[in-house]
Amino acid sequence: MKAEILSVGTELLLGNIVNTDARDISQGLSQLGIDVYYHTVVGDNPARLTAAVEVAKGRSDLIITTGGLGPTYDDLTKQVLAAAFGLELYFDEAEAAGIRAYFEKTGREMTDNNLQQAWLPVGCTVLHNDWGTAPGCAFVAEGVRVIMLPGPPRECNAMFQNRAVPYLAALSDEQLYSHNIRIFGMGESAVESLLREKMEAMENPTLAPYAKEGEVMLRLTAKAPSAAAAEALMAPVLSEVRAILGAYIYGIDVESMEEAVFRALKDRGLTLAAAESCTGGLIAKRLTDIPGASEVFRGGATVYTNLAKVRLLDIPAGLLEAEGAVSAAVAKALALSVREKLGADLGVAVTGLAGPEGDGKNEVGTVFVALARTGGVEVRALKLQGDRARIRLMAAQNAFDMVLRALA
Amino acid sequence: MKAEILSVGTELLLGNIVNTDARDISQGLSQLGIDVYYHTVVGDNPARLTAAVEVAKGRSDLIITTGGLGPTYDDLTKQVLAAAFGLELYFDEAEAAGIRAYFEKTGREMTDNNLQQAWLPVGCTVLHNDWGTAPGCAFVAEGVRVIMLPGPPRECNAMFQNRAVPYLAALSDEQLYSHNIRIFGMGESAVESLLREKMEAMENPTLAPYAKEGEVMLRLTAKAPSAAAAEALMAPVLSEVRAILGAYIYGIDVESMEEAVFRALKDRGLTLAAAESCTGGLIAKRLTDIPGASEVFRGGATVYTNLAKVRLLDIPAGLLEAEGAVSAAVAKALALSVREKLGADLGVAVTGLAGPEGDGKNEVGTVFVALARTGGVEVRALKLQGDRARIRLMAAQNAFDMVLRALA
Repeated sequence: MKAEILSVGTELLLGNIVNTDARDISQGLSQLGIDVYYHTVVGDNPARLTAAVEVAKGRSDLIITTGGLGPTYDDLTKQVLAAAFGLELYFDEAEAAGIRAYFEKTGREMTDNNLQQAWLPVGCTVLHNDWGTAPGCAFVAEGVRVIMLPGPPRECNAMFQNRAVPYLAALSDEQLYSHNIRIFGMGESAVESLLREKMEAMENPTLAPYAKEGEVMLRLTAKAPSAAAAEALMAPVLSEVRAILGAYIYGIDVESMEEAVFRALKDRGLTLAAAESCTGGLIAKRLTDIPGASEVFRGGATVYTNLAKVRLLDIPAGLLEAEGAVSAAVAKALALSVREKLGADLGVAVTGLAGPEGDGKNEVGTVFVALARTGGVEVRALKLQGDRARIRLMAAQNAFDMVLRALA
Repeated sequence: MKAEILSVGTELLLGNIVNTDARDISQGLSQLGIDVYYHTVVGDNPARLTAAVEVAKGRSDLIITTGGLGPTYDDLTKQVLAAAFGLELYFDEAEAAGIRAYFEKTGREMTDNNLQQAWLPVGCTVLHNDWGTAPGCAFVAEGVRVIMLPGPPRECNAMFQNRAVPYLAALSDEQLYSHNIRIFGMGESAVESLLREKMEAMENPTLAPYAKEGEVMLRLTAKAPSAAAAEALMAPVLSEVRAILGAYIYGIDVESMEEAVFRALKDRGLTLAAAESCTGGLIAKRLTDIPGASEVFRGGATVYTNLAKVRLLDIPAGLLEAEGAVSAAVAKALALSVREKLGADLGVAVTGLAGPEGDGKNEVGTVFVALARTGGVEVRALKLQGDRARIRLMAAQNAFDMVLRALA
């Protein structure tokens, strides 16, 4: 099956946003064993979109569109695609009821253009959208399979994974099963050079690296008629990868380091508290992104200023003066204090200089991460590279890594 | 001039990388007043690339290619483009000398395929590459202008800005100027239904809505020979939009609500502290994303559990019992306490239920945001919709909105 991703949106052509939808869908199709031959981006213009659909029809078996399903006058993807394949639109009462209910529930005023979203091509499979109001759809016409997904990346991704992938997987009697191996502390090229020969020699399962911000992910994928058969294919590779990468693997099939921390704490019935200077709430934010975080995370203090360190966590002003806020001693004191104050099993603390401006004493990227637990407090001194966002990210990653290693 | 960006690279179709080159070039062309009508991505495959060039020739006046200029056997962009336009390649001795010199200088061994990069279309303008070894080039044939740039984003960007932009600027005498109008508290479709007729009737400047997560942005863009002429075109529209949307506009040409808050506090020499229950650090994290945040943000407490509310901010256990953690009274107490503890001018607090699980008392989405300042404390009671991430986001947006309105 030759696939083409047709993204509709003038904001892409103006360079306001980058086409992450095409990247995410390409990754997913590649996992399904479907070859993507083209990406096309076209603006919210019916004539040019029609022409682009004609080109796509002539060269692709599967067209996945993104964008242009919303309620505004320039959202024309359904209309144009239906017309290009000679299909009429019908008003889907069930989807319309869902849209009305959404507005009633949120107490927002619904204008008529919101109901425009309930017009769908006759005979299509409706892909209900649980992440927004615009439904997607799928149909086959003129020998071409068309799937339409909304444009906003969060919606597009959820609709692709939860609607399009099952729809496409049902077309084949073999399915793809995969494991995500999450790695922290080793760069992508180092991981790759350790595994390159193995990866190149593999056919089923396959093993491929994905660079993530601040970490590396390997995806192991097997094509098989059942989950059990896939697991049998993957098990020996998984053991081998574990043997090679060892303790750099922080989790398998977890979503993120914070989720690995959440699970590890929950399994052991332990709690954590955090004191954050340069990360300024990032660690707490990431942990509380997880539903149920309060079972393991007691909270913490965003001690972004010296005053906050003194007032919220009773750090002696003398210590701050003598050692400086960016110091191993202050990191330790923060970890001990937040642990004790919140009666947590573990206390983690970060202090450092995220930049871009220096403090006249420390280099930008100097970060101390401390972990307090029964038996004492340890500290990791880091020299992180990159911009402010990257330094903050890596400081948080290191904090999570210390917690995970303490619980291992 | 109708432009098309033709990116060549199988790694894009596999979803290994996202097409930032197309985004960066689109932004730059838009600044030059050149309309980009299409992005196309095709793999390192001569037949499909040839076909894509034929499509592009038929609909675009300017084709900018990225990728496929390097030394490996699958780098075929120059060969394919030259053939598609009936041009021969010649061996450019000057570029070849440059490549040889590069390898001598770096002490790396040069293989013959590196010299492949010195073959260029006869009659082209050579775009010398100071950021890598592969030269770019530009030519006009069959009424179409073609510019070829290397693929690696750092090189592509540098070559575009320093080689392609001067080359193209010499062809035009008008440029684009724009203002971003940021809106909170009114949905995209409501904004649009207020402005649709106006937007449709406008030609220069233009006004277009962009949905952002949790807010709306309007971009006003004028094409003019100078910044002053563009401002003159935009000023009346800006006044009109201000009159229509009024206090829903939280900023013009700011990046985000947190940046608007940062600027407003800084302009007035005021400080803020935050107590976060259900947002769990999100407000602090967003504020401290901004370099220099410590000038205005004193820090705060992530009081994710009742224990943290009591221990870090001295909230009476009796109040928590009597009113419940998710209550206007507790939100007020948190805002007052964090303000006082950190000696800040403003104290903001959020308490609520982000879900997905309920607490047996409140509906998921019930959120109270309180703002304490000289003269008292006010509270906003919200019923937010959506998933956990959206509820947390909207709670933070409302907190920023309360601060901005207090400072207005």
